[in-house]
Amino acid sequence: MIATNPVDVLQALIRCPSITPAEGGALTTLQQLLEPLGFEVSRVMARDEGTPDIENLYARLGTDGPHLMFAGHTDVVPVGNEAAWSHPPFAAEISDGMLYGRGAVDMKGGIACFIAALARLVEEKGAPKGSVSLLITGDEEGPAINGTTKLLDWAASRGEKWDACLVGEPTNPDQLGDMIKIGRRGSISGTVTVHGVQGHAAYPHLTDNPVRGAIRLAESLMNPPFDHGTDNFQPSNLEVTSIDVGNAATNVIPASAVFKFNIRFNDTWSAESLQAEILRRLDAAAADTTLRPGREPIGYDIVWSERPSHVFLTRNNALIASLSDAIEKVVGASPQLSTTGGTSDARFIKDYCPVVEFGLVGQTMHMVDERVAVEDLETLTRIYRTFIEQWFANAAA
Amino acid sequence: MIATNPVDVLQALIRCPSITPAEGGALTTLQQLLEPLGFEVSRVMARDEGTPDIENLYARLGTDGPHLMFAGHTDVVPVGNEAAWSHPPFAAEISDGMLYGRGAVDMKGGIACFIAALARLVEEKGAPKGSVSLLITGDEEGPAINGTTKLLDWAASRGEKWDACLVGEPTNPDQLGDMIKIGRRGSISGTVTVHGVQGHAAYPHLTDNPVRGAIRLAESLMNPPFDHGTDNFQPSNLEVTSIDVGNAATNVIPASAVFKFNIRFNDTWSAESLQAEILRRLDAAAADTTLRPGREPIGYDIVWSERPSHVFLTRNNALIASLSDAIEKVVGASPQLSTTGGTSDARFIKDYCPVVEFGLVGQTMHMVDERVAVEDLETLTRIYRTFIEQWFANAAA
Ligand SMILES: [Zn+2]
Ligand SMILES: [Zn+2]
Repeated sequence: MIATNPVDVLQALIRCPSITPAEGGALTTLQQLLEPLGFEVSRVMARDEGTPDIENLYARLGTDGPHLMFAGHTDVVPVGNEAAWSHPPFAAEISDGMLYGRGAVDMKGGIACFIAALARLVEEKGAPKGSVSLLITGDEEGPAINGTTKLLDWAASRGEKWDACLVGEPTNPDQLGDMIKIGRRGSISGTVTVHGVQGHAAYPHLTDNPVRGAIRLAESLMNPPFDHGTDNFQPSNLEVTSIDVGNAATNVIPASAVFKFNIRFNDTWSAESLQAEILRRLDAAAADTTLRPGREPIGYDIVWSERPSHVFLTRNNALIASLSDAIEKVVGASPQLSTTGGTSDARFIKDYCPVVEFGLVGQTMHMVDERVAVEDLETLTRIYRTFIEQWFANAAA
Repeated sequence: MIATNPVDVLQALIRCPSITPAEGGALTTLQQLLEPLGFEVSRVMARDEGTPDIENLYARLGTDGPHLMFAGHTDVVPVGNEAAWSHPPFAAEISDGMLYGRGAVDMKGGIACFIAALARLVEEKGAPKGSVSLLITGDEEGPAINGTTKLLDWAASRGEKWDACLVGEPTNPDQLGDMIKIGRRGSISGTVTVHGVQGHAAYPHLTDNPVRGAIRLAESLMNPPFDHGTDNFQPSNLEVTSIDVGNAATNVIPASAVFKFNIRFNDTWSAESLQAEILRRLDAAAADTTLRPGREPIGYDIVWSERPSHVFLTRNNALIASLSDAIEKVVGASPQLSTTGGTSDARFIKDYCPVVEFGLVGQTMHMVDERVAVEDLETLTRIYRTFIEQWFANAAA
């Protein structure tokens, strides 16, 4: 295999059916591509009770600083309705200039382009002055417990230190070069159980309807808005994602009602200050007994999701400029610097070094007929190569 | 068995384990008590697809008018936690002046008192000038499909006509003589499904959260109040009895949300005018898109419960006065004339003749250790006997 052609690399990766938690041969393929380029490759098995074992890969080229990390994942989401695919999801067939397959854009394509970019650089100019590492997990689409966090721990415990990281997730909404991610909103989920007094619907004065309470408490989280956005972030947004009572008897007022919410929050808040604000709102709504004069305040419990995702914003201008300039040089336009969208593994990496995200166009990710334009693979390879050269040049300066 | 003693009659009935839909020997016991008094007894089996067959009983004493009906049921609710009963639920044991057993107050006790009252009257003065009928169902606590409605149909098709009806359900909140029911609120239930647009919680602008919509629609039914009550009725009251989404993924906005409601309504409304008002509120809330400017109105479906219970109020003053005077004569105080509480089979009977309800104290109905004071059985028997005599005297006048 000639690692300088991203199409060949991507086809080899797609043909490894690495649906989380399966390795599917994808990491072995990477190892076979990276070792000839001079990388020292480690395969790292991660275990945690109650979750499947996951194999991850860490590869480093060079021993000195400055040290640039590329982070990504070879695991892919399930194919969905396989019969609905116009090309088999693990065949990597090319048709009308499009390469079809699960993982084409999320994100075996990004990995393929980075390897091709580096192979071209090594072939033409030799290895960069410093180190380049690949931190590749097999558990980004799954529980994400045995993936990036464990791999970062493992590498850090061996003394690895990084100066910057590029995450190769698909970041462009419409076309290649649209958008870099320079931060991400945080995310917190919670489950609120509202306790009422059960009874017959004909005697509501003997009951306290917890559905009424759940609606009040949920509304206190929906209005007013938590903020109106900041310079770098959209407004924080809370959605009530479920309400569940499970009462089949129409003439009975139930004993309790449960609702779940998720909030995507910006740098107005820390996870802790936001949780305090949520509790303040719930307590105020629960204490406001005007609907039921003379009754006890509504009783409720809240259980937070295990690990909040913290908000972050990358302030390393040299890193952002290296990537932004590379994109402008190759596609002729500057990318938008964005903090929109969901969480990514960048939220873990940001604790170790500045991190930016840039990859392919995300439109077909997780969908039937996930696909990438062959032309985009060449363009992204050129962007990545320019970025690598630019970043090492800036770091040396 | 001496039918003039309500305690004996009630013990015999409690010892028939007639949990809906089982007859349990209860109707056979009644037949054996009524035929010696001169009643012509019919056992009427009712069938309907998808529900258990139910045996009912219709008994008539006399052939001419005026015609007084007593209505009730021998079926009982399950015993619940049998180990928690201080006396076995079908043993009819007497302890400290209380007779224990399932059905003691709801409503084998009422039936026992009416039979004893009538037996005393027949023994002392002969049968009343006119007719007395007992309309006894075995399906009041169950689906109520094969009970009173079918039995009324059957009797009416044979030419039976009634001038008044007394239902022997427990009506007294605290002590015997507290309360007559002269009407009942109606009851309607509905299930509303709110349709949204599913998606990722990080991209709410690509979704439409149906939980938000369900909360809006449910609130439009909760406020403002439907009315403020009438001369004879409490305010109509709506309770949202369940909300269900069933979305386990905290990062996903679901496709739909379902809520159920039940409204107990007064004579401000007919079932039809109230359903129209509910639809008007739901449509208005759905069309109000201020939460999501520029989006389609919320889409929703509503399914009504199969059979609304219609509101009714008895305006037959002679009937009400006969009962009220009998109570005052026996216990020394006038009862409250009420329309509170749940629905009863009186809602079906009111289409055939004026109906009032009066029975024992309801505090222990449907509970563990359901029980009646032996003294109350004697008092209710005397009230019923006085009522029967008074009613026939009024009817003859
Ligand atoms: Zn991904
Ligand atoms: Zn009853």
